[in-house]
Amino acid sequence: MTEVIRTSAELREKVAAWKRSGMLVGVVPTMGALHDGHLSLARAARGQSDRVIVTIFVNPMQFNNASDLDKYPRDEAHDLALLEAEGVDVLFAPGVDEVYPEGFATKVTVGGVSEPLEGAMRPGHFDGVATVVSKLFGMTQAGRAFFGEKDWQQLQVVKRLVEDLNIATRIIGCPTIREEDGLAMSSRNVRLSPAERAQAPVLHAEMQKAAEAMRAGTPVAVALEAATRAITAGGFGAVEYLELRTVDGLRPATDLSEPARLLAAAWLGDVRLIDNIAV
Amino acid sequence: MTEVIRTSAELREKVAAWKRSGMLVGVVPTMGALHDGHLSLARAARGQSDRVIVTIFVNPMQFNNASDLDKYPRDEAHDLALLEAEGVDVLFAPGVDEVYPEGFATKVTVGGVSEPLEGAMRPGHFDGVATVVSKLFGMTQAGRAFFGEKDWQQLQVVKRLVEDLNIATRIIGCPTIREEDGLAMSSRNVRLSPAERAQAPVLHAEMQKAAEAMRAGTPVAVALEAATRAITAGGFGAVEYLELRTVDGLRPATDLSEPARLLAAAWLGDVRLIDNIAV
Repeated sequence: MTEVIRTSAELREKVAAWKRSGMLVGVVPTMGALHDGHLSLARAARGQSDRVIVTIFVNPMQFNNASDLDKYPRDEAHDLALLEAEGVDVLFAPGVDEVYPEGFATKVTVGGVSEPLEGAMRPGHFDGVATVVSKLFGMTQAGRAFFGEKDWQQLQVVKRLVEDLNIATRIIGCPTIREEDGLAMSSRNVRLSPAERAQAPVLHAEMQKAAEAMRAGTPVAVALEAATRAITAGGFGAVEYLELRTVDGLRPATDLSEPARLLAAAWLGDVRLIDNIAV
Repeated sequence: MTEVIRTSAELREKVAAWKRSGMLVGVVPTMGALHDGHLSLARAARGQSDRVIVTIFVNPMQFNNASDLDKYPRDEAHDLALLEAEGVDVLFAPGVDEVYPEGFATKVTVGGVSEPLEGAMRPGHFDGVATVVSKLFGMTQAGRAFFGEKDWQQLQVVKRLVEDLNIATRIIGCPTIREEDGLAMSSRNVRLSPAERAQAPVLHAEMQKAAEAMRAGTPVAVALEAATRAITAGGFGAVEYLELRTVDGLRPATDLSEPARLLAAAWLGDVRLIDNIAV
């Protein structure tokens, strides 16, 4: 049975009892609308912790766009059934007033890795992420936390955060889970029309082609330009960014002289998709 | 014996061993140059914890003024002797590079209670306090932390911080310790000349008089104006602020209809003194 807990006081009591027995607590922070990507994180947590908490909280502070927040899919009953099947111990699903009670006034800002890409396109987004993640680590007292590489930049921000604030939670990044046609799993995918869903894999496919071209010696800028053209030709609207960045520190990369990551955000209809791959 | 620890890795090991034995850890964060005010905090921690850590770190991030940082008194050998005498278990005295290693990029901002008074006079000061305190709580994993009421606003900021970020450290405020003539103990007092030291008590004395006048029915604004005149007549230069504020939320108070605090900052020569009392 997965126990549903809604208050941090109740959660703290539960966790304190586990900790008295010397148990290692793993947490998977999510915004719900769970898919196989999330479940792979729950399985990783299951394998590397004694007790597993999955959190579901659609965090208003990390949405820079009110309509994106409104449209974000929510189905807790379905999510709970999925977590039961994975043997998750606790679903922590607090309300907005529990996380941000009256008088709440604190913000955590991570500079550097949070600034380009998503940070540039979504002002305030990573402040919201860093703040809520700090809170969730405080509430869950987790020894390990599991995040998907799908949100690569977020993973780097969270790693920086726990190092900088000396938070005793180890961050574990887990591989992106994809549909058979290569589309990265995302809660936002359900908002694609059937026609858009058919077009969506072009993003990942063209990123792969660009990565192969770079590895074969095509200049980075040339490969990126060709991929951008192909993605829009394949049905996408604006490509917000398609960039090669260093793995260490997300600095702009103009060649493959150090480990790099190709990251993209693009609009398909009114849905914004992101993806990233190693190069 | 008080053990001196300089790295957070070594401290974490020490604390983990204590915690495995079920011990409650108390921490007293300081910037060194210890006086009886600090020692009263160490004694409170001794009485309410199984193990006591005193931290000494002159935090560059909370100094908005480079010359104040340079002039801040430092005497670790003397501080250590005082802590030995109080039975403190660990003196944690990390260097600047240990607290802010290369790549450090995170800032914790507490809004609201941090904004008036010290926050208005010392831009960025409370961001530095909130950030380093978050880090020290992470490093020490303390169950209780002891702060002096001398820095009343700081105490409110830290209380807001731990509530907002769900940090598992309970904040305990301890009364201001004063010299016999009423001057609040402060590490900065050693920078007063003998003549200034003789004038310094007028700040607290006039605050007391103003508080008594308010309690006797003198309008707040009238009492504050008389006190400001008397403080400058007594040898002080600029009175940066002398304000009545609500205990709850540090809102401006124009009468005594709810619990209030009188807070002041004023310059004596080139030393900035602060004080506060209940009204």
